[in-house]
Amino acid sequence: MTQNEDRIAAKVVTLKKGEERRIKTGHLWVFSNEIDTRKSPLRDFAPGEPVRVEDSRGQFTANGFINPASLISVRVVSRRPTEFLGRKLLFDRLKTALELRERLFSAPYYRLCFAEADFLPGLVVDRYGDVLVVQITTAGMERERLAVVETLCELLDPGAILFKNDASGRSYEGLPEYVEPAFGTPPDVVEVEENGLRFTAPLAAGQKTGWFFDQRLNRARFAARAKGARVLDLFSYVGSFGVNAARAGAEEVLCVDASSLALEHARANAAGNGVEKRLSTAEGDVFEALDALKAEGRRFDLICLDPPAFIKHRKDAAKGEQAYVKANREAMKLLDDGGMLLTCSCSQHMDAESLKRAVLRAANMRRASVQIVEQLHQGPDHPVHPAMPETNYLKAFLCRLLR
Amino acid sequence: MTQNEDRIAAKVVTLKKGEERRIKTGHLWVFSNEIDTRKSPLRDFAPGEPVRVEDSRGQFTANGFINPASLISVRVVSRRPTEFLGRKLLFDRLKTALELRERLFSAPYYRLCFAEADFLPGLVVDRYGDVLVVQITTAGMERERLAVVETLCELLDPGAILFKNDASGRSYEGLPEYVEPAFGTPPDVVEVEENGLRFTAPLAAGQKTGWFFDQRLNRARFAARAKGARVLDLFSYVGSFGVNAARAGAEEVLCVDASSLALEHARANAAGNGVEKRLSTAEGDVFEALDALKAEGRRFDLICLDPPAFIKHRKDAAKGEQAYVKANREAMKLLDDGGMLLTCSCSQHMDAESLKRAVLRAANMRRASVQIVEQLHQGPDHPVHPAMPETNYLKAFLCRLLR
Repeated sequence: MTQNEDRIAAKVVTLKKGEERRIKTGHLWVFSNEIDTRKSPLRDFAPGEPVRVEDSRGQFTANGFINPASLISVRVVSRRPTEFLGRKLLFDRLKTALELRERLFSAPYYRLCFAEADFLPGLVVDRYGDVLVVQITTAGMERERLAVVETLCELLDPGAILFKNDASGRSYEGLPEYVEPAFGTPPDVVEVEENGLRFTAPLAAGQKTGWFFDQRLNRARFAARAKGARVLDLFSYVGSFGVNAARAGAEEVLCVDASSLALEHARANAAGNGVEKRLSTAEGDVFEALDALKAEGRRFDLICLDPPAFIKHRKDAAKGEQAYVKANREAMKLLDDGGMLLTCSCSQHMDAESLKRAVLRAANMRRASVQIVEQLHQGPDHPVHPAMPETNYLKAFLCRLLR
Repeated sequence: MTQNEDRIAAKVVTLKKGEERRIKTGHLWVFSNEIDTRKSPLRDFAPGEPVRVEDSRGQFTANGFINPASLISVRVVSRRPTEFLGRKLLFDRLKTALELRERLFSAPYYRLCFAEADFLPGLVVDRYGDVLVVQITTAGMERERLAVVETLCELLDPGAILFKNDASGRSYEGLPEYVEPAFGTPPDVVEVEENGLRFTAPLAAGQKTGWFFDQRLNRARFAARAKGARVLDLFSYVGSFGVNAARAGAEEVLCVDASSLALEHARANAAGNGVEKRLSTAEGDVFEALDALKAEGRRFDLICLDPPAFIKHRKDAAKGEQAYVKANREAMKLLDDGGMLLTCSCSQHMDAESLKRAVLRAANMRRASVQIVEQLHQGPDHPVHPAMPETNYLKAFLCRLLR
């Protein structure tokens, strides 16, 4: 490993007066309007270039990397003057991240690195046994992508690594979208071990990095309510909630998703865990499926509503909230008195209070009362950075509906 | 059971214009400043009297009970015009509450009724096998206390019921404080079964209703991190976190509390679960104990900080936040790099964001970084009413400390 990061002669980014405060609390982002562009014009910087951040009096504040094309201009990587993004820092941070996951889980299936929350801005790494999936969303990390791969090889000696660099957020950083092997030959399908069950998920052709590790504990909490229940799994993807529920003794499970590939996996996952007789699938738009189920007079005791982010941008928050109200209301129509709904939102721009409000409005429209029985969040391999609300994105409520 | 509640000729409380809105969302409180006291002078009402609430145009809004002595004048019990607090409503609501707990837990140890969140304002019932503890905090419920006891007898056929009516909140309602048998002969000590372990706790002489059921799941999450760890349990009460950790394989556990009775139980609970060799106790002020442990050079891998509410009243919020910062900072001093702190707050006036901020400030003072690994809440037998943030009081973060 080279140790010359501390000899990088980084250019200086000067902040406007007082703009160092948020960084000093531990936040890792400098926005473009916080930079004194007279002293440090953004056009002088290349995307991903390492920088030294100084306050308006010229005092050292942090080191990071810059992207003049992004609203988030600088991502901080260290508050130590000699530390920059490079192999040593990548190795130390990934090792620290690995130590946490090895304490949390007995098998190597987890999100190994959760970007800013593991102090590596824009780097997500998911681990599926000896297959790793890397997702990069910042120009600075993209610049170090080979160092990322080499560090992961050194740390974990994996069989294969895939770059799953097709997140829409890359466009904000001016980065191209691509999915390609980074090391070895990644398989099309990976295995996942979770809550004592085994699943398969499509890798390159799947959603995001293939599997949603963030809902692991929530699936267990959902399954704990499933014994003897008629269960509906909406936006089921590869059936992870549904199969967990079926294994926990659900009487019947229906998984609904728009993707036939996802439902193929859901059926295979049911079979792999011996519950194929109690799990069925329905392909199609979830809202249309809810209408159809209602028309058929179908009723459920337990529903999981885990939609993709209805709110992608802050400006769409109001409209997005309406979508959550509608989805919750339609799901509630299929529940009997005392039935339970696990309602989730992975929208960063929808906080827990907003989701609570959406649930309440949906229930009021149904003239029903609601008890929130459990308040749930992203799993422990997706830590939250306490200075960065942006890292706290997944919230879920297990609700009991009363008429 | 008498069925004459619907024939109660309740007096009318008239709201000021627009003040029915919060009630219509499902909230159960009417504050004194929301009442049109020209039309319905508060002096006309007796404490606890049933009332019909109407909006400024004379439209029915809800039924409830009133206390002219309290800032919270009316507590709503129903949005149905014919339904008032009485035996039928108590029976229906307690049965609905019981159904939830019977689905949640395999053994009869839980909070059976959580007041407003179970739609019974001011009524808390904890269940310890065939012993029930009732805690009443509203004049309306106090007026029906015999009906409460009779309904519980009908529903559960318990061996004994204790009134633990010594909560400080009763003074706001002008209610006297007392602890006395309500039925049968309640024992001095009760047994509790939790997470597969057995505990004892003092009943009349104990804190609150004897046991803190609200932390049940959080103790399991704490224990999941305890294997091989040196564990410190601060404000340990009867050692519930500590014994859970010891049973999960902690190398050593130290319980600190100011109550010698609580620590007697902690030692007995350790012995009862076969971990007395790995659990010790220290009696005294927790802040002094933290100083002493630091002076001795003691280090821990996992700490539970579960203090009593530092903030009792909204006006003390700023000072209370300081107390949380101090407690967290002092606890962090005893953690090694990578150590974990479960930090809790049961203060209603300290929301999750404020606790997060306190943790962050404590860490910044220590020049340490923090990852919030888990976000935890009150257990499922303490449901949250989505329209009433007041019912959402317990929040906890499992934090990982990095230098």
